[in-house]
Order: sequence, then structure tokens, then C-alpha cells
Amino acid sequence: MTVGKERTNEEVIQALHGVASEMHDKMVKGKPPTMTLPVRTKSNIDFDENLGVFKYGKEKVNPETGRKTWEIKKTVRDATSLGSAKQLLRSLYITEFIEEMIHSGKSSTLREMYYISEGWGNGKFHTQNESNNLAEDLEIVTKCLREDFKLRPEEDGARIIGNVTFEERNRKGDWMRINCRDDVGDSGYGVPYNVESEKLRLVNEDIDFVMAIETGGMFDRLIENGFDEEARCALIHLKGQPARSTRRIMRRMTDEWKKPLVVFADCDPWSFRIYASIAYGAIKTAHISEYLATKSAIYLGITPSDIMEFELPSDDLTKQDLSALEAELTDPRFSDKKWVERIALMKELGKKAEQQSLAKWGLDYVTDEYLPRKLGHEDVGLGY
Amino acid sequence: MTVGKERTNEEVIQALHGVASEMHDKMVKGKPPTMTLPVRTKSNIDFDENLGVFKYGKEKVNPETGRKTWEIKKTVRDATSLGSAKQLLRSLYITEFIEEMIHSGKSSTLREMYYISEGWGNGKFHTQNESNNLAEDLEIVTKCLREDFKLRPEEDGARIIGNVTFEERNRKGDWMRINCRDDVGDSGYGVPYNVESEKLRLVNEDIDFVMAIETGGMFDRLIENGFDEEARCALIHLKGQPARSTRRIMRRMTDEWKKPLVVFADCDPWSFRIYASIAYGAIKTAHISEYLATKSAIYLGITPSDIMEFELPSDDLTKQDLSALEAELTDPRFSDKKWVERIALMKELGKKAEQQSLAKWGLDYVTDEYLPRKLGHEDVGLGY
Repeated sequence: MTVGKERTNEEVIQALHGVASEMHDKMVKGKPPTMTLPVRTKSNIDFDENLGVFKYGKEKVNPETGRKTWEIKKTVRDATSLGSAKQLLRSLYITEFIEEMIHSGKSSTLREMYYISEGWGNGKFHTQNESNNLAEDLEIVTKCLREDFKLRPEEDGARIIGNVTFEERNRKGDWMRINCRDDVGDSGYGVPYNVESEKLRLVNEDIDFVMAIETGGMFDRLIENGFDEEARCALIHLKGQPARSTRRIMRRMTDEWKKPLVVFADCDPWSFRIYASIAYGAIKTAHISEYLATKSAIYLGITPSDIMEFELPSDDLTKQDLSALEAELTDPRFSDKKWVERIALMKELGKKAEQQSLAKWGLDYVTDEYLPRKLGHEDVGLGY
Repeated sequence: MTVGKERTNEEVIQALHGVASEMHDKMVKGKPPTMTLPVRTKSNIDFDENLGVFKYGKEKVNPETGRKTWEIKKTVRDATSLGSAKQLLRSLYITEFIEEMIHSGKSSTLREMYYISEGWGNGKFHTQNESNNLAEDLEIVTKCLREDFKLRPEEDGARIIGNVTFEERNRKGDWMRINCRDDVGDSGYGVPYNVESEKLRLVNEDIDFVMAIETGGMFDRLIENGFDEEARCALIHLKGQPARSTRRIMRRMTDEWKKPLVVFADCDPWSFRIYASIAYGAIKTAHISEYLATKSAIYLGITPSDIMEFELPSDDLTKQDLSALEAELTDPRFSDKKWVERIALMKELGKKAEQQSLAKWGLDYVTDEYLPRKLGHEDVGLGY
């Protein structure tokens, strides 16, 4: 099975049973049960140059033949230590819990699963982190998604405004058609936690591109100024570091509708990482990068050179900002020439700036001047 | 003018001109311009027992007649110090900015106004706090609302699910009708920042009560379990300490639809404050408590006695929790018998618990057992 391929409920249950089978097979041979999974450390995650994303494993080059292979370091969790035995027990309880949810058409937050484990005797989780990590382990081992397991995060998904139409299957099982320009209030369409085709269909669109926006203030500004209609685009409010469902729906919009995705964020090292996680994936979700990342995403701004060109109000970089920039210089996601230059310029300026600082020139400046110039630039080619 | 009465754009402009007039009148008399406003310290805020809300001023009792009066301590900001002179200058710039927005049908985030002030010479704000506070000063002086000034916060508003219908005026000026059960996806209806009648109309409903819910996880649980239909209620996700628009829309739903409002939150001292700000107002918004607070709001749970009765997983109270509880004992919003008892019991138990801890008993326990029992209790009287 490959990551990203959608699973039926039956396939999910089968994949989870695979975990139980490994344990069972060992036990019938009189051996302690085991669970084999990739080593979940940073050293076992690498940037796959071909796919352009972070994923588990390392590229190995055979020194004699020069041939490249991708190797994933694995670890075996066995029941010979108390800690590992508990993890195996929990995996079985989770499997049972997920099966129950699938059969009853339910879902649960990660927090609820943590509390549900109160009834699991020695399998009880002691921290939320333990349960979140084990859910991720099971994703990695089964190549399913947390969404397939019917596990939900607490965080809210993105909001979307623009002339695009989705169909969402509501809790009664009916498909509801929602146009994100005509059928929603000012706060837009709220993206659900599960945006797979069983839950959400991309029906049709009349746009030229998709724009992801970091801050709510800027998202609301572009809406008020009617930018979605003027520039023929869909606007997505990322709400800071975007949730999985947000990254996934952007990926689906670029895949299924063949639309370019541009990212409009603050000019600071943390916003650069928001872009990187959209385009190349993040370490935390390295096992599903191929599924979430939109390699073709374009970073539109704010860039360090914008601070000068548009004379934006700015703040000094802090120590934390500077060390984040240093770290980015060794991060393969920022290895292309443009990013190296941007980061060098930012260090030289010693400044960062927010999207909303464009308001210095008036509330319409961003849509009358800044965005048309940036989108029309030859690197982007989305002039309108 | 009284707080809470809705203002036309003309009235808002007039009220702001009143601020300019005070300055102008002084100047034509050859005196330094002034701005008179209530002292904005905690000592000038008191709990109005009659209205049951926090507001500016103190009750004074005449020792001879026994008659009670409400006195608001005022301060005069005049242009004889540089700091005050700048505040007066800024007030005039803001007035001009708001007038421009009203005339052009625009709005702005507080952050944008901060950046706009780059062009105000000596009136430039140096921190976001300065501009936020001055916007509040102008609310207090003019008895208008920030929403009347077309100033928006960055925070998101609440989400609503249930069989209630609103009309929202969209950016094209058209009224859109949205039923919060049939016309929205799983994430519900997103409440806009301005919920006044010029922007939002409460059209009709088929519910028995309104339930405000602290956490997204519990909100989603109640939706998945179909609780809104089963118990005939509208569900509102507060997103932690509720935004002004959230508190205002709950107040409107209770006023216009005559529906009880129950609050379902975690059992910890901070959640108690969420309830208190909904029911009685908060110090930060003391000047508009009469307008935002829903005095009749009922605290449903989680209560300290629920922790015992429902054997909920709990955490120890931290030092910060304990001192928050101590502060609540001297807070007039918690002076009624029920709260005094709850807080005493909580201190005795030394424990707090989350809403989602009910999942210990299964995903349906909250809707099958907990809520029916709590709502049906004689103190609440909303059995169904």
C-alpha cells in the first residue's frame, strides 16, 4: 500500500489487524510479541530530492555501483520490557477502539481517546503526548491516516472564500453543496477535519489560482476589498501553522483543479517555515509528506526585499529569530538559490515585517499595488 | 445616549465630533484642549448589584438619607504634557480615520490601525497596546462600540450549529439567509465580528435553549452525537474566553428569542471566569457590560461535585489555580451561595477536570447520561 491512496474502512481495519497479526504470529511460536516500526528520530528522516519532500529514511549510495536506494531504519518494539509491553497492549486497545468507531460511524478527538484509555488497565496513557505519538506510530506502520482511524485534532481547520464549490457529506450522510462565495457568511467556509473524498468533493471552480494567507487580519482585508473576485482566486486562511486538513485540501485543489498555489505570509523565520511545511512537509508529519505537501507552492511574500522596496514598518530580529534563520540555512527545504538569498538579505537587514504592515500606505494598498505587482512578477506569472 | 442602543453611522460620527468639540471649545477660549474620560483603573469599576454586571463607577450611599447614587470618577487629559497631547492628537486622527471608513464602507483590524498611524507624525502609536487602549477610551467617551467604529479584532468568532436561522448582510450588501443546521458544514456557522442588526438578523428558531461550550472537542462531540436535535438546542463553541461578538450574539439570542443560555465548560478556575464574563461582564469590557452580559446564564458544569459524582479523571490544582480560586472568593461575580460552595469544594478536593474527561465512560456518555441528568436537575429545569 502507498501513502496517500485512500483507504476503505475495510482496508483500514485490515491494516490494523496486520499489527495484531505480527504480535499473534510471534506468540504462537512461543516468542514475545513484537511491533516493527521506523525509528522515529530526526536522523531517520531525510529530504527526498526527487519527490521534493521530507520523508522517513535516508538515501544510500552504493560506493561501487553509484546506485541510490532509500533505506528506512526500523526498530522492533517487543514485550520483553514493561514500557514496550504497554505500548503493544495500547496498540491493541486502540485497534479495537478504532474498529468500534468505524462500525458505529463515530469519530473521536485525540483527547477523548486519551480519556477512553482510563478503562484500559495497564494500557492507560499517562500523558496526551503518549497517546498522540502512538496514533502517529500506527499511521506509520499501517500507512493509513489518522483521519482513516476517525481520530480528530482539537484545532480548527482553515476558512475558505472564493468562487469554488465543494460537496460535504453531513452527519446525516447527505451531500451538501456549498459555494464558498455565495453560500457562506463573511467568515467563509470552515474546512472540516476530514477532507478525503468520502467526506469532501471538489465540485467545480471558476478561479485562476489559490492564495493561502497566514493571518486572519489580512484574510479579512482581502475579502473586504473583493480581491477574490478581482483576481479570480480562492483565499484560504491558514491560521498560523496549517492543520493537516488545511494542507491536504490545498494539495487536492492543486492536484484536481490544476491551480497554482501562492503563499502570502509575514516576513519572519517562522512564516518561512509555514511555507516550507506547505511545500515540502514537516518533520512531525514526515510519514505523510507525499500526501500533504504541495511542491509547486510559490512563496509570494512578504520577502525581505519587500521590506525595502515597499518601505514597510519593521521590527528588529530577535535572538530566537536569528537562530531560526541559521537553522534554515542548513535545512534542505531552504536550499534553493532564492531562499539562500532571502535569508542572507534578512540577516543583513536585521529586520522582519508583518503582512498587515502594508496598511501603512492605506487599507487598499495591498490589493491596489502590492499584490498586483508581486503576482505579475515574471517569477510568478499570475498578473491579472 | 445609553450603551447598547444601536447607533447609525451619523450618530457615531456625531459622537466622535463631540470629542473634537471639547478640544475645540477649550482652544477658542485660549485654553489647552482636553478630553474627559472615566478613570480606567480597577478601583473605578464596580459590580452593579441591580444590573448584575461590572461597570464603571462606584455606588455611593449618602450616610444621612441612605440614598444610593452611582458615581464615575473622571479624569481630564489635557495637552499640557507631551504624553497627553499625543493622545489628543491620536484621538483626532482616529476620528478622521473612522469617518473615512464609514464613508467608504470599509472596516479595519486594530492591527491595521496601528500601522496606519505610521502616517500620523507625532501621533504614531509605538505599541499595539497603545492603539487598542485608545480605541477603548473612545468607546467609553462616546458610548459607541468598537464595531460602530468599524474596528475589528483579529480573533475568530464563535461557531454555531442548531436549528436557528440568521440573515447576514454580505459584502455586496445583500442579506443571505443561513440555517445553522441545514446550510452549513460540520464546522458550523462562523459568527462575524459585527453582530449588530445592521449586519446580522435573528430570523427564526426551533429550539428550547442555547448551550455555550468551551472546547472544540466537546462541541464536535455533541454535534456528532446529534445532541442539538435530540435536546432541541443551539450549540455555540466559545473558543476559550469568548470574543465580544460571541458574547453579544448569545445576549441577542436570549433577549430576542427568550431562550435560556447554559454554559458547559471545564471544571477549572479559568473556565469559571469564562462563565462569569458571559454572565456578568469582564473588567476589560466594563464599559459595555450592560450590552454584552447575559445575566440569566446558567453554569451547567463541569462542577467540582461532578468530579466525584461522575468519577471523572482529574488533575491536581496548581499553585496558579489555587490563587485564581482565592481571587474568585473576593470577586463579586462569585458571591452567590452556589459559587461559594463550588469553590470551597474544589479547594477541598484539590482537583480540576476537563469536559472531555467524560469520555472515560465512552463517547456517548456525555449525551446519554451526563447532560440529560444535569439539564433535568431542578435548578436548571431543561429536562427533555
